[in-house]
Amino acid sequence: MLYFVGLGLGDEHDITLRGLQVVRACSAVYLEAYTSLLCFGIDSSAISTLEKLYGRPVTLADRETVEQNADKILEEAKSNDVAFLVVGDPFGATTHSDLLVRAWSMGVKVQVIHNASIMNAVGACGLQLYRFGEAISIPFFTETWRPDSFYDKIKSNRLLGLHTLCLLDIRVKEPTLESLCRGKKEYEPPKFMTVNTALEQLLEVEEIRKGSVYNSDTICVGLARIGNSTQKIVAGKMKDLLAVDFGPPLHSIVIPGSLHPVEEEMLAFFSIERTEDTEIAQT
Amino acid sequence: MLYFVGLGLGDEHDITLRGLQVVRACSAVYLEAYTSLLCFGIDSSAISTLEKLYGRPVTLADRETVEQNADKILEEAKSNDVAFLVVGDPFGATTHSDLLVRAWSMGVKVQVIHNASIMNAVGACGLQLYRFGEAISIPFFTETWRPDSFYDKIKSNRLLGLHTLCLLDIRVKEPTLESLCRGKKEYEPPKFMTVNTALEQLLEVEEIRKGSVYNSDTICVGLARIGNSTQKIVAGKMKDLLAVDFGPPLHSIVIPGSLHPVEEEMLAFFSIERTEDTEIAQT
Repeated sequence: MLYFVGLGLGDEHDITLRGLQVVRACSAVYLEAYTSLLCFGIDSSAISTLEKLYGRPVTLADRETVEQNADKILEEAKSNDVAFLVVGDPFGATTHSDLLVRAWSMGVKVQVIHNASIMNAVGACGLQLYRFGEAISIPFFTETWRPDSFYDKIKSNRLLGLHTLCLLDIRVKEPTLESLCRGKKEYEPPKFMTVNTALEQLLEVEEIRKGSVYNSDTICVGLARIGNSTQKIVAGKMKDLLAVDFGPPLHSIVIPGSLHPVEEEMLAFFSIERTEDTEIAQT
Repeated sequence: MLYFVGLGLGDEHDITLRGLQVVRACSAVYLEAYTSLLCFGIDSSAISTLEKLYGRPVTLADRETVEQNADKILEEAKSNDVAFLVVGDPFGATTHSDLLVRAWSMGVKVQVIHNASIMNAVGACGLQLYRFGEAISIPFFTETWRPDSFYDKIKSNRLLGLHTLCLLDIRVKEPTLESLCRGKKEYEPPKFMTVNTALEQLLEVEEIRKGSVYNSDTICVGLARIGNSTQKIVAGKMKDLLAVDFGPPLHSIVIPGSLHPVEEEMLAFFSIERTEDTEIAQT
């Protein structure tokens, strides 16, 4: 059996009892490295914390490892119980769907153990989940690559009065330009997009596209480390949030659509004026 | 401190380690009754299972209890640790936002412990979460009340190529007509909408509105008991799913928008033809 186990959003204590029971009984345990690196700050001590909790050795598996060793993992799962641990919920990323489809194709039994992910925990900011439209991803702009298709999606959502969850770019194990030229493997240090960078990019796109979808006075919500004890949520005008320090990863943004009274009331607790005075409601 | 603790989607083992730790240390534990009644089949034995796991007495709190006793609960949470347990994630329903806002207004500290909810676990059917548009709710039609505003939302989503999650009606503690007339409290037995009833209502609305948003040949996905070991997912034409028995609650439906290749591949594993042959991928 291949178990996909969601680890939730905080730390090692956010696994479910069912998940822990499964992991403890597995003969092999892989930890997906893409987001876990930024959430758990995975290093040897973080891995050993997990190993102690699970009573099992844990193998860190980056995308390359998963892609190159999928056959080995799946072959193993044919006769033994194998756990594949994913930060958040297992269906947050397409990579895992690929592994799942391959497992089914090979006749490997699969079980999924769900957990919280940013896609539902974003409700913590007070905006109702059923009033969100399509979620968007904001990639790091480079000198030559500044894709802005997310702008049209925000526009569609706002025309319908819907909120937009903006997922911000994460760069893990990106080969350096130098290493690509020389053909040897060297990686950039991990990099995550801050609320501030995302807002700058959003405003730059509005400046170019001029569709009046939003502007620097538009109220939006910056979120950092949702589900973690250090979580931070601040609502305010885009121009004001530009100066807020949201701290370590992961960050995301919500651009609200129309607001219901309860939503307005809840957002008020996270307003930039109020959160500057006190840390109420931040934990 | 008032803790909102998500219980996830399956049974008592879907609480997180963090959640369990909190609940065990609380002086009072309330269990929200609205959905838990249908998920856990809450009766005295189910409650005592939870009490045994938590080592704490558990009070079942329906909406009335919460609304009428909110002050008492919040007053208690001022000086003691109180847990409010919610099936799924705490932010699935507006009721809890109300309690949260009241807590903050009274200066009661609040902490939220997230978990899986249908809003993210729906990814189990193979459709990517970031390609979902606005979620809709389908209410039970009566002789005189057949609201169909969800039709326009499905239309908007499909025009944008987005998937629609349809949440199906749950009726818990509805007063009987007789009891309303006589002024004494008697309740209808709990009632949940099946995939089949929802499909009938969807097709009836298309028949009346004639917007060609979908028809009986439209592929959609029926889901039951997601996150539970008996979960069932079947994809097929609306007219074919009408005859499928999805079993006990809770049910939901996804009406897909345009499909990416990986999504198509995953949905194929849940196709009605395949699932009739074998129980592959159902657990």
